[in-house]
Amino acid sequence: MTGEFEHIAHLKNLFGALASPDLGIGDDAAILHDSRPLVLTVDSAVEGVHFDRRWLSVSDIAARAVEAAVSDLAAMGAVPGELLLAWSFPCTSPDDLVTELAHGVRRVTQRLGMRVIGGNLSGGPVLSLTTTALGRACGPCLRRDGARVGDVLAVTGHPGAAAVGLRALLAGRGDDVAFTEFVNRWRVPTARIAEGRSLVGRAHSAIDLSDGLAQDASHISAASGCALLLDADRMPWIAGQREAARALGCDATALALHGGEDYELLASGPRSAFDARWTIIGEVLPGAGVMVVRGGKTTAVEALGWDHFSPGPESRRDSDF
Amino acid sequence: MTGEFEHIAHLKNLFGALASPDLGIGDDAAILHDSRPLVLTVDSAVEGVHFDRRWLSVSDIAARAVEAAVSDLAAMGAVPGELLLAWSFPCTSPDDLVTELAHGVRRVTQRLGMRVIGGNLSGGPVLSLTTTALGRACGPCLRRDGARVGDVLAVTGHPGAAAVGLRALLAGRGDDVAFTEFVNRWRVPTARIAEGRSLVGRAHSAIDLSDGLAQDASHISAASGCALLLDADRMPWIAGQREAARALGCDATALALHGGEDYELLASGPRSAFDARWTIIGEVLPGAGVMVVRGGKTTAVEALGWDHFSPGPESRRDSDF
Repeated sequence: MTGEFEHIAHLKNLFGALASPDLGIGDDAAILHDSRPLVLTVDSAVEGVHFDRRWLSVSDIAARAVEAAVSDLAAMGAVPGELLLAWSFPCTSPDDLVTELAHGVRRVTQRLGMRVIGGNLSGGPVLSLTTTALGRACGPCLRRDGARVGDVLAVTGHPGAAAVGLRALLAGRGDDVAFTEFVNRWRVPTARIAEGRSLVGRAHSAIDLSDGLAQDASHISAASGCALLLDADRMPWIAGQREAARALGCDATALALHGGEDYELLASGPRSAFDARWTIIGEVLPGAGVMVVRGGKTTAVEALGWDHFSPGPESRRDSDF
Repeated sequence: MTGEFEHIAHLKNLFGALASPDLGIGDDAAILHDSRPLVLTVDSAVEGVHFDRRWLSVSDIAARAVEAAVSDLAAMGAVPGELLLAWSFPCTSPDDLVTELAHGVRRVTQRLGMRVIGGNLSGGPVLSLTTTALGRACGPCLRRDGARVGDVLAVTGHPGAAAVGLRALLAGRGDDVAFTEFVNRWRVPTARIAEGRSLVGRAHSAIDLSDGLAQDASHISAASGCALLLDADRMPWIAGQREAARALGCDATALALHGGEDYELLASGPRSAFDARWTIIGEVLPGAGVMVVRGGKTTAVEALGWDHFSPGPESRRDSDF
């Protein structure tokens, strides 16, 4: 890797000076002084698995990697704080790769008021970005295991819209204006920080939609010990979402259930917990598993036969632990 | 990736149950309640760059990755606490890969009383382990920028011993008993936590030896604004270290200066700061840069012509920031 110390000096400049009494970039480790409960998560974005450089600029890749990590903070109802960035890439990479990555990160840190407090650069066969995100709890955190029978289920945004965009890119139709909005939703996701915070002390459970509604709902179902019923007829489609999915040979509901990479939130709680940013799409019932109502018919999600509907490579499916 | 949820369930078992009131493994993010200053670092170990599976078992790879990250906590004088593990690997990997990795991590967490509080599994072209390590400051942290003129320089262990082991492996002589001790030092490094803590409130600066004495000393020199003089004639060789290096066509001093991967500590401070675990190998002088005394002759480290002496691939050189 050429110019590693130049890279580091540049990153120090881009990510700002040290804020006393904290020690950030520039030592073996960063030091944080804080008495509030910390919320921590880690997420990886690997070239060829999570992204393809034909479809994303380098700065978009970096911004997307950070939004995906921060989305886990949103799902906890936490306030975003600091980032640690571990980047590996081939030593033959262009010199401006690190700068472009840093610019992408800066877009997110400036939007969310976050700080980069450290990181690590190393060689590797492909570009791989692992982001550790720290936040602060601003009340009881939203967990996966808090759903209660009688809760309604609500989502932010438009589940499945990002999956339409990815399908368009996979079909070589990413430049078709009919798909522009969907491609942008896949390219530039936005972690739902404010929406997550609005639920603290009000909702009972939450999770972010990285794997699709079906999979992510099943995590809440399993952790909370109850059944989740999703109403496909109440899904908050963007105008044209169903038609765009159809034009790509897909079903919009299937993409919402299994497409993933929306980085929207799914939450449960009393109806009063959810303001206009949320759409009620179901309810929590006694039992187990995830069911879908469509046209008046209720089906267990496994029985829909869409488990392997994901438009991305199967290995994209990640698991947080 | 097959059986990801089985992997996660297994990891939850291996890494222990949730300790109330903290929420660890099993949600979007982990929650930590702590009022002491946190010390955080991240480190990556990438197959083909940092390790080769011919030379290390999978559990040794994982243990080594954690020790390397924790070594940064040792260099700050921090007490190790929690880990977040981001692992990526090909979806064709054997099913027991995650279990073997977890066993390696457990060796370290049990030795150091650490907890795994979260992580992420994803696909990737090679095995890649990114470790975020959290610790607690137990007094003023040891920084790179605290060295003062008049300080002595001291190291733990035997710098260059791991590099002899790696050279033996590269030469296909890893099984030769003459190199066993050195190969083991490379294979199974041990973060110098107790040694780092012993300096808190006593020494003035510290860094861990991941890149070799020359490079790591230059970080202290640059951050502290003074010159570091290393005495090659006081280097704490293991019995046979010089002979083993010579048998591999190497100079033991060159390996100590440029070999790296020792995960020992280099520190500066008053002589009284250092107990019997430390060897005094130099002093801090007015000026800039790193110099080496050998046989009575003092030479600037760049002028030794050993900059590219590293036995590993050049891209192994990482940069923390």
